[in-house]
Amino acid sequence: MNGEDAFVDAVRTLAPEGASLVLGPGDDAALIEREAGPLAATADMLVEGVDFLPDEEPERLGRRAIAVNLSDLAAMGAEPEFFLLSIGFPRRRGGEYPLAIARGAAARGGEFGARLAGGDLSEAPQTVLAVALWGRPAGPALRRSGAAPGDLVYLSGHPGQAAAGLRLARRLAAFAAQGSTPTARFPELSRDDEERLLAAFRDPVPRLALGTALSRERLASAAIDVSDGVGRDAGRLARASGVKVVLERHALPVSMALGAFAAAEDLDPITLLLAGGDDYELLFTASPSQAARLEARSGAFGALVTRVGRVEAGLGAVLADGRSEMDVARLGHDHLEPGS
Amino acid sequence: MNGEDAFVDAVRTLAPEGASLVLGPGDDAALIEREAGPLAATADMLVEGVDFLPDEEPERLGRRAIAVNLSDLAAMGAEPEFFLLSIGFPRRRGGEYPLAIARGAAARGGEFGARLAGGDLSEAPQTVLAVALWGRPAGPALRRSGAAPGDLVYLSGHPGQAAAGLRLARRLAAFAAQGSTPTARFPELSRDDEERLLAAFRDPVPRLALGTALSRERLASAAIDVSDGVGRDAGRLARASGVKVVLERHALPVSMALGAFAAAEDLDPITLLLAGGDDYELLFTASPSQAARLEARSGAFGALVTRVGRVEAGLGAVLADGRSEMDVARLGHDHLEPGS
Repeated sequence: MNGEDAFVDAVRTLAPEGASLVLGPGDDAALIEREAGPLAATADMLVEGVDFLPDEEPERLGRRAIAVNLSDLAAMGAEPEFFLLSIGFPRRRGGEYPLAIARGAAARGGEFGARLAGGDLSEAPQTVLAVALWGRPAGPALRRSGAAPGDLVYLSGHPGQAAAGLRLARRLAAFAAQGSTPTARFPELSRDDEERLLAAFRDPVPRLALGTALSRERLASAAIDVSDGVGRDAGRLARASGVKVVLERHALPVSMALGAFAAAEDLDPITLLLAGGDDYELLFTASPSQAARLEARSGAFGALVTRVGRVEAGLGAVLADGRSEMDVARLGHDHLEPGS
Repeated sequence: MNGEDAFVDAVRTLAPEGASLVLGPGDDAALIEREAGPLAATADMLVEGVDFLPDEEPERLGRRAIAVNLSDLAAMGAEPEFFLLSIGFPRRRGGEYPLAIARGAAARGGEFGARLAGGDLSEAPQTVLAVALWGRPAGPALRRSGAAPGDLVYLSGHPGQAAAGLRLARRLAAFAAQGSTPTARFPELSRDDEERLLAAFRDPVPRLALGTALSRERLASAAIDVSDGVGRDAGRLARASGVKVVLERHALPVSMALGAFAAAEDLDPITLLLAGGDDYELLFTASPSQAARLEARSGAFGALVTRVGRVEAGLGAVLADGRSEMDVARLGHDHLEPGS
C-alpha cells in the first residue's frame, strides 16, 4: 500500500460513515444524503508564510483552517454540515504531518457539527490548506447587503487581538532564536494576556452560536465576518448594502490584553482593531426593533456583543470620534492589491 | 475598491445568480437551493511544478483544475452542479491572472453543467489551485467497491497519452530554450499526434457522458478514474472490492500517437499506459449481463471503451501476457510515498 492510500485509510477513522454520510474518504467522491433546502457553501485557502507562520504545529493548523471556514458560515447564519480538506505539503515533513492536520480539523469541525467527508493530498514546496465547507442557514441567510439607514452596528468579541497575537508570536519566535526568555521582554503583559492574544490568532473561535441565533431569530439585517480588519470589512458590508457605516471610536471594544500590548508596543489599539485582520468576529447590523430584541438576548450568544455604531445614508465606512470622521474602508492589508 | 473586491466583482459576471444559485461570489458563502437527495462531493489541489508545468497559461490551468474534479464525479456517475475555486498565486503575476484562471474553469465547468459559486484568493510563492465540486449521482453511485469475480474490466480512451504529453511538453520547452525548432527533433511524430498528446495532458476531457450513463443505466459494478496510472488505480479498485484485477497486455488500447512517441523515446508504450498518470479516463467493471448491454450501447458514450481484462477471486492488480503475470498495483508515481 502506498503513502496516499495509507493516508486515506487513516483519515477514514476521522470520518466514520453513517447518518447522512453515505460514503466518506476513499472513493472518487464523498456521498452525502441531504434533505431539500438551501446550501451555504464556502472555501478558504491558507498558505504557509502568508496566512500562518512557518512551522506552525499541524494540529493547530488544521483547527485554524476549519475555523476560518466555520466563521464564514457563522456570518451567513448557517449550521455546518460537511467539509472537504485538501493539503499540499513538503514531503520532508513526513506522512504523519497531513494526518495531524486532518485530525485537528476534524476535531475542531466536530465541535461545531462539521464532519470531514473527503479531500486531497499533493506535494508542495510549502504547506497549503484548502477547505470547502457547507451547511444550512438556520433561518433567512445573513447577507452583507441588508443594512439600511437607521440600523445599529454590532461587533462580537475583541477584534485586534489576533493582529496583536500575530505580532507577539513573531516577537517571541525572534526572542527564542536569540535564546532570551519572552516574559522578561514583556513586563507589561501578564501570562494570561499573552495566552489570550496568541490564541486569538492561532485558534480563533468561530461565532456560530451567535450567527445561527441571528439568522434563526431574525435579529440582524446584515452580517459579515471580520477577516481583513473591522475597517475594511465594514466597508464591504457598507458597499454591499449601499449605505454608510459609522463606527464610534469610544464604543469599540478594546480588551485589556490588547490595550496592554498596544501600550508596550507604542501603538494605537484602535488601529490594531480596525486594520488588524484574522479576527473572525462578526460585524452585523440590526434595525431598531431587532436591536431591542437582540440586546435583551445578548447573554445567550456565547460571545460578547458590543454596539459600536450606526448606519447612515451615504456610502463607505468611517471612524467617528465626535469631532471628525476618518475613512476606514481601505485600512488593513489586502493580499491582492495589484502592484502594492 | 481594493484588489480582492475588484476580483470578486469580475468573478460575479462568471457566476450569474438565478435558478438554484441564490447568492454567488461576494458574500461570506454562496447560497444554493437544492432538492433532496444524494450529494457527491470531491476536492482536488493542483500545485505549480508538481501537478502542472511552471508558467502554464492561466485559462488552461483553470480548465484543467475543474476537469480533474469533473473526472471524479464522472467516476461516481454524478451530474455536476456547482464548484468553489480557491487560487493562491504570486503577486507579480498581476490581478488579471486569477481572473483568467477563473474564466477557464467557469467555461470548462459550464460545458458539463458545473457552475462557479464562489471561492477564495491568497498570495502564495507559486500558483496553487483548489477546487471543490459537487453534484448528484445520475443513478446508483459508481463505487470502487462493487467489482466481483467473473466481471469484465473496461477502460475509456487512451491512457498513457497524458504521460507522453507531459514528457513531450518538457522536451519542447527545453528545445525552445535552446532555440531549436521542435518538429526537427520529432520526425516520428506527426503534428496531429503531437497536439493529441499535449492536449491529453493539458486539457483532459472528463468522461461525464460515460460515467453518468454507467450509473443511470446500471451498466457497471465498480468504477474509478485513472489519475495515477492504470496499474495503481486498478490496484485501488481491486483493493476496495476485495478482488484481483487481471489486465490483458494485448487488449490495452495503445493509440497510434502513444506508439509513435514511445518508439521515438525507446520506451514501452504499455509502461506509459500503466504507470503514466494524469489521464482522467475511467476504469470500470461490469458483470457479464451488464457487459452485454454495455457493448451494445458503446457508440453512445462519447468515448472509446475497450474491454481490457477480467476480475478474479484474489487480491491485487496484474498485467497478464498469456505466459506470466506482473504486479502493476505499485507502478507509477505516488507523490506521497513516505521516504521515496
